Amino acid sequence: MIKDMTQDEITLYIIKTLKENKKTEFEAVIEELHPYDVAKIYQDLPEKHKARFLLFLKFDVLADLMEELEKEEQLDLLNKLGIEKSGKVLDLMDNDDLALLLNELSPEKKDSLLSGMKTEESNAVKGIMNYPPETAGRIMTNRFVWIRDYFSVREAVEKFKVFAGFAESINYLYVIDEARKLVGVVSYRDLLLAEPEEKIRTIMYERVISVPVTADQEVVAKMAERYDFLAIPVVDEDNVLVGIVTVDDIIDIVIKEANEDIEKLSASGKSIDFETKTLVAAARRLPWLILLLFIGLISGRIISSFEDTLQQVVALAFFMPMIAGMTGNTGTQSLAVVVRGLISHDIDKGVITRLVMRELGVGITIGVTCAILISIIAYIWQGNLILGAVVGCSLFFTLIIGTLAGTIIPLILYRFKIDPAVASGPLITTLNDIFSLLTYFGIATMFLKHLM
Amino acid sequence: MIKDMTQDEITLYIIKTLKENKKTEFEAVIEELHPYDVAKIYQDLPEKHKARFLLFLKFDVLADLMEELEKEEQLDLLNKLGIEKSGKVLDLMDNDDLALLLNELSPEKKDSLLSGMKTEESNAVKGIMNYPPETAGRIMTNRFVWIRDYFSVREAVEKFKVFAGFAESINYLYVIDEARKLVGVVSYRDLLLAEPEEKIRTIMYERVISVPVTADQEVVAKMAERYDFLAIPVVDEDNVLVGIVTVDDIIDIVIKEANEDIEKLSASGKSIDFETKTLVAAARRLPWLILLLFIGLISGRIISSFEDTLQQVVALAFFMPMIAGMTGNTGTQSLAVVVRGLISHDIDKGVITRLVMRELGVGITIGVTCAILISIIAYIWQGNLILGAVVGCSLFFTLIIGTLAGTIIPLILYRFKIDPAVASGPLITTLNDIFSLLTYFGIATMFLKHLM
Repeated sequence: MIKDMTQDEITLYIIKTLKENKKTEFEAVIEELHPYDVAKIYQDLPEKHKARFLLFLKFDVLADLMEELEKEEQLDLLNKLGIEKSGKVLDLMDNDDLALLLNELSPEKKDSLLSGMKTEESNAVKGIMNYPPETAGRIMTNRFVWIRDYFSVREAVEKFKVFAGFAESINYLYVIDEARKLVGVVSYRDLLLAEPEEKIRTIMYERVISVPVTADQEVVAKMAERYDFLAIPVVDEDNVLVGIVTVDDIIDIVIKEANEDIEKLSASGKSIDFETKTLVAAARRLPWLILLLFIGLISGRIISSFEDTLQQVVALAFFMPMIAGMTGNTGTQSLAVVVRGLISHDIDKGVITRLVMRELGVGITIGVTCAILISIIAYIWQGNLILGAVVGCSLFFTLIIGTLAGTIIPLILYRFKIDPAVASGPLITTLNDIFSLLTYFGIATMFLKHLM
Repeated sequence: MIKDMTQDEITLYIIKTLKENKKTEFEAVIEELHPYDVAKIYQDLPEKHKARFLLFLKFDVLADLMEELEKEEQLDLLNKLGIEKSGKVLDLMDNDDLALLLNELSPEKKDSLLSGMKTEESNAVKGIMNYPPETAGRIMTNRFVWIRDYFSVREAVEKFKVFAGFAESINYLYVIDEARKLVGVVSYRDLLLAEPEEKIRTIMYERVISVPVTADQEVVAKMAERYDFLAIPVVDEDNVLVGIVTVDDIIDIVIKEANEDIEKLSASGKSIDFETKTLVAAARRLPWLILLLFIGLISGRIISSFEDTLQQVVALAFFMPMIAGMTGNTGTQSLAVVVRGLISHDIDKGVITRLVMRELGVGITIGVTCAILISIIAYIWQGNLILGAVVGCSLFFTLIIGTLAGTIIPLILYRFKIDPAVASGPLITTLNDIFSLLTYFGIATMFLKHLM
């Protein structure tokens, strides 16, 4: 009945059923909705209707709803539900989503929530939380269905039917041996295509691609992207199947990792979004800014040590921002190429050598072009041939230095297993300020007597 | 047999079968491999073996292989195959991948490839290529299976079995009415769980979420992420089902869009990766750099107009790079927050007002903190209280201006439907250079007689 209604009309209808206490009509509508839509309606609902809304929802829908909400909303919802109902809802949530919620709570709050859950479920969540953040172990779920290779297709489907509510959208059944080792995989598609009496052994795919439980989540995402998988099995060191990572989580990872790269490249600090409060956002941005302020003062120190040169040829100051800016810009460009390239490439010595040589070539090409251009402009503007030559020559060298700094610094960080994106744009820019001022005033001082 | 072999061992074994002309063994191995692995082996293969490798592959594997390769490799492969075989392979490729390849070819080359294909397939591809780039129509595939609502589950599965090779990994069957309008969807999971004699009508989900054929690909990705769908149906203005977008394409879109944002934020120009040739990379980066060079000269022009001030208090130059740098940095931070936020938020006036006010608050907080810090440092370093006050006061104002510029400029671009990421970090930095110099020297000139 609701299929042609807009989101707003549905919300109004839901409010009507709540006011008139019509649970059957309420449930009929909710059943037609996706979890995302249920969450939207819950968020739009006036506060006074929320209690009955939650009262009317079944536990599995509540669990789905929880998974769509932000942390604060989740905690608020659990408060509204009370301890006992909370436990039942948490039992039904995907382990990885639950681990994410619990991870940021105080130990007392965490224990209180875990104590309301079934022992097996709370143990599963605790298990996940023992793995380091951003690894396969941390983002996997235990909501998968395993079968044995001597099952017939009919038996596999029977088992699947029993556990279907439990293993919602996985699209593969995993085949394990008596030691729970992963030995094969069959897709729902394979099951539909096979005859009921065929053995799983004959239709299963044996060369299963899996990831170790300690694999970085970026590696997991890379595998899913390469192989177009809808889920990837996670195994421990003995090849025992311990969980799966599903494609919806992988999309979330890809988005999160890209955002993190952008945050780091812009040194905007961890997780500032539209909802972050002013003081929190300022506090997250300040540490980098203060560090950069001090590095910026080094530039000042360099200029002050060339005070005599500057005093005698004030025109040198006119080109300072341009030279520093250009060096910073070319560095940022190289940095972006390297940071994103590292994500999609397998890195070896050959790749790195080729990349550094390429960027050196780019630096020289850009340097020659911009240097000639600026020499002519500086000569025309200031009517001083030597000044033009000094500015051009400086720009040539600083552009090469800037390009190489933007390339080599992130590569060195990567080599030492530090995320190369922490060599943020502003850091590279500020470092390049220093390099460029040293070069510029160094060259200018050498030619000082010709400049005056 | 190959399940425990490494990639290298498999490649060596493949070479062996090629040398010894053992097609059966060759095919047995290939059948066990994923398209990504087949592509890796093909790429690693010595050139002299490639012809027979291609000769041994079946058409459907060739089509899968094509989809894994880069454009240049695809064209090389088609050349090796010859016109007639090429046509058959292209017939089997996913339309969207094929459209992507054809899109970048010369009209003659395109026509020659299309002419080797079946009429219905070439028409389908031409249809896709009529949609604007980066829309749902351009990335959809027509390889889906439709059923009617009066089918029984058994009939649906029968039809699916016939078309299974054609519709590989979609996980949903779409239900259409006699006018081909989309009226429902059933998943493979629904089919496995249902009884054979049940009617599709009774198990199908009627409130199908679909996207219009003209929707931006970012919107499609957002839908898939919100609803955790494995495929999204694409409909025309009459709700007629014209194609589907699958989750593997959605992951590719998410990665591509994130990379584009980073490229634009760093002004590194379009698509430079590790393989881009030196001169091409330099040529792509130069336009922005030359533009920024001229904008940088405006800074020089500003300084030169304050030449008298600078000549009298050379120490002012010491703080120039720091002030300009800090203004640029805070602007870049705000920019990154806004650009990424725009992707995941629905934007209205309320959101924008709140965001601008928040960033104003952040600017003031950061401004006060850094201004106090730098006033003290400047006073201690130069022993001049007024100089300290001028520097601090300037930094306070420029940090607020920088933060707001980094927030408002991308929002204005967004308002005028220009991608906000073109307000790249370097552009914001360079603009902020100008703002900060004007503020700094303006304030300094006002206090000039106290400074000396």
